[in-house]
Amino acid sequence: MKKGVFITVEGTDGCGKTSVLTYLRNKLAEKNLDILWTYEPGGTDNKIANCIRELILDPANSEMDARTEALLYAASRRQHLVQTILPALEEGRIVISDRYVDSSLVYQGVARGLGMEEVAKINAYATEGKEPDITIFLDVKPEISLARRNHDTTRDMDRLDQEPLKFHQAVYDGYQKLIHDDPDRFIVIDASQDLQSEEEAVLQAVLRYLHA
Amino acid sequence: MKKGVFITVEGTDGCGKTSVLTYLRNKLAEKNLDILWTYEPGGTDNKIANCIRELILDPANSEMDARTEALLYAASRRQHLVQTILPALEEGRIVISDRYVDSSLVYQGVARGLGMEEVAKINAYATEGKEPDITIFLDVKPEISLARRNHDTTRDMDRLDQEPLKFHQAVYDGYQKLIHDDPDRFIVIDASQDLQSEEEAVLQAVLRYLHA
Repeated sequence: MKKGVFITVEGTDGCGKTSVLTYLRNKLAEKNLDILWTYEPGGTDNKIANCIRELILDPANSEMDARTEALLYAASRRQHLVQTILPALEEGRIVISDRYVDSSLVYQGVARGLGMEEVAKINAYATEGKEPDITIFLDVKPEISLARRNHDTTRDMDRLDQEPLKFHQAVYDGYQKLIHDDPDRFIVIDASQDLQSEEEAVLQAVLRYLHA
Repeated sequence: MKKGVFITVEGTDGCGKTSVLTYLRNKLAEKNLDILWTYEPGGTDNKIANCIRELILDPANSEMDARTEALLYAASRRQHLVQTILPALEEGRIVISDRYVDSSLVYQGVARGLGMEEVAKINAYATEGKEPDITIFLDVKPEISLARRNHDTTRDMDRLDQEPLKFHQAVYDGYQKLIHDDPDRFIVIDASQDLQSEEEAVLQAVLRYLHA
């Protein structure tokens, strides 16, 4: 059986992830690689996971309990994994996902105060322990990333954007703990540098990993 | 602090639950009791839990993975508990819910083959272990209940109705195990008798429990 490669990209809000992924996608298109580009919450061409995404991100759902939210993320991830990610990996494709389990561990587990271990358990149930081969972390302190993001007037505010700095600091600290605990899986990219350098650094890291 | 009473009603499909609950509601209305009538998946006046309900029950979502479904039920239940059930109990009200955790244990845990213990863990997370004070179980073997249900042309088929007898037998066996393991919580009502006798038996059991 062919074996694909599962890459995830993680970072705090405002780390440049969207720009980096667009750049990566354009540059890798020249390389004749078979890549499935996907994202969480939701997933490319995944109707059920995207319905759950809409529920989670709808600003009208401000009364959503933190545990409800964590369970919805896990449900969406489960569907994304079995219907989108695993079939692609079984076909030997490269899967690059904008966010995966790590996001829940830090956003729900740490920043929302649910506890990383508890959230890890739910996600272990959802994923049956399936981990990415590598995770690109775009590393920028929240003071800098939030300032960037507040200058970006092109995007609508969703429910998660309405959080204070303390929340984003907790997210950042959560990622640092994950990297500390599993250094071999993470490739940490300096995302406080100018965007062009950040994009190029990510591209080179991915090409190195893929030997492409 | 006042303490309410939390009653759940459970049964296999076609056990007469809808009729029983309507009868109970009409009869208890004469008794000057402060009752919140609610249901799962979803919950009375619970927008988020009902959005999740729609996702679960939509026949178009036939590609939903069993673990996704179990996580969605748990998410919906969490929201129902914290936003609807617990506030009513804290006000000293009687809460009567059409289904609760037991339904997930037998439908997802046993009938869908996910394992009762695994589903129990997710639900323990969702409910923080909150259990009903009593659970009315409407006891009728699936051969009888399904035959009844197939004669009922007033209701639309939803996704869960499309399951074969084997599935419903597993659900029934699952309930028997729950009753065996926690006999003090369950009040078992013979639901193979005529509907009028079943309704009256449930009413009397509830009145006895409430000393009303």
